[in-house]
Amino acid sequence: MRAQILAATAELVARDGIVGFRYEEVAELAGVHKTSVYRNWPDREELVADTLLSYAEDLASVADTGDIHRDLADFLVALADGLRTPFGRALEQALQPTLQSPPAQQVLTRIFDQRVAAIRRRLEVAADRGELPRVDSAFLAEMISGPMHLIVNRGVRPFTRADAKRIVDVVLGGIRATAPHA
Amino acid sequence: MRAQILAATAELVARDGIVGFRYEEVAELAGVHKTSVYRNWPDREELVADTLLSYAEDLASVADTGDIHRDLADFLVALADGLRTPFGRALEQALQPTLQSPPAQQVLTRIFDQRVAAIRRRLEVAADRGELPRVDSAFLAEMISGPMHLIVNRGVRPFTRADAKRIVDVVLGGIRATAPHA
Repeated sequence: MRAQILAATAELVARDGIVGFRYEEVAELAGVHKTSVYRNWPDREELVADTLLSYAEDLASVADTGDIHRDLADFLVALADGLRTPFGRALEQALQPTLQSPPAQQVLTRIFDQRVAAIRRRLEVAADRGELPRVDSAFLAEMISGPMHLIVNRGVRPFTRADAKRIVDVVLGGIRATAPHA
Repeated sequence: MRAQILAATAELVARDGIVGFRYEEVAELAGVHKTSVYRNWPDREELVADTLLSYAEDLASVADTGDIHRDLADFLVALADGLRTPFGRALEQALQPTLQSPPAQQVLTRIFDQRVAAIRRRLEVAADRGELPRVDSAFLAEMISGPMHLIVNRGVRPFTRADAKRIVDVVLGGIRATAPHA
């Protein structure tokens, strides 16, 4: 039931926005009684937070094939695909500066922290193997996901695997070139 | 009068969104008669388009001090500062996927094209001087402005000159490292 309610919330937040979605419609879409939603999430902001976090967890992992370029490009493609789902559009809504309440900011911070932690673990392995110098993983996360968000949000063209590869190659090349001990 | 109306529109779009702002309030804030707004901009979308374009023109220039790293970092800092003004917040509103109409997309495309053209002129000079290899300026624009938009939108910390310098150094380092004839 929890999963159904969160999925319904994501769809309605994506359509109506964080301030616009209604509990009645969440219940209807999830096929549950309205009181089930109210009882478990008396607070709208907690319902939105749980919805976004459940989505973000699924996307916060970086594989280890032994090739850091490939693994980061795969991560970026998965993230871009995720942004096109109702969960992802709900997340983009939450990122709107005009809609950001302090609780929404806390959720966004947790989501970014999850993402950065997943990248950090993979970067540490890469550094141990000598594939890359030690690097600030929050900075690397911004460098690779910033251009992706821009392309996805602009919506003029799809974000492709070639885009992901090109972004990762330039960022890793630049990190190697600018590393203090390179 | 045109400038006053566009400034008032920017402020109201920043506050109420592209679909929420009202002509009556634009006229009141601009200190003009309502018919002056309606007569010159019978179409809401044209009023929003002119507002965004007038802002974007001011920011679409890259100086030439002879140091491409410094000039791109300055460009990025000016852009980030611009995003904190009412014009900038109106632009971020227009970038919201859920609000994008085909005319809004055309305006956004024109704004990005202006920005890319300014960067392209500066990159050509840099390439002529041997500072950088020839580079796809649309790609470079995405690579440097994507992380900046992410930091500004997240709103957790201010975007600083040190951020701009670090982004530009990694991107230019990566472009040099991955250039076919490097």
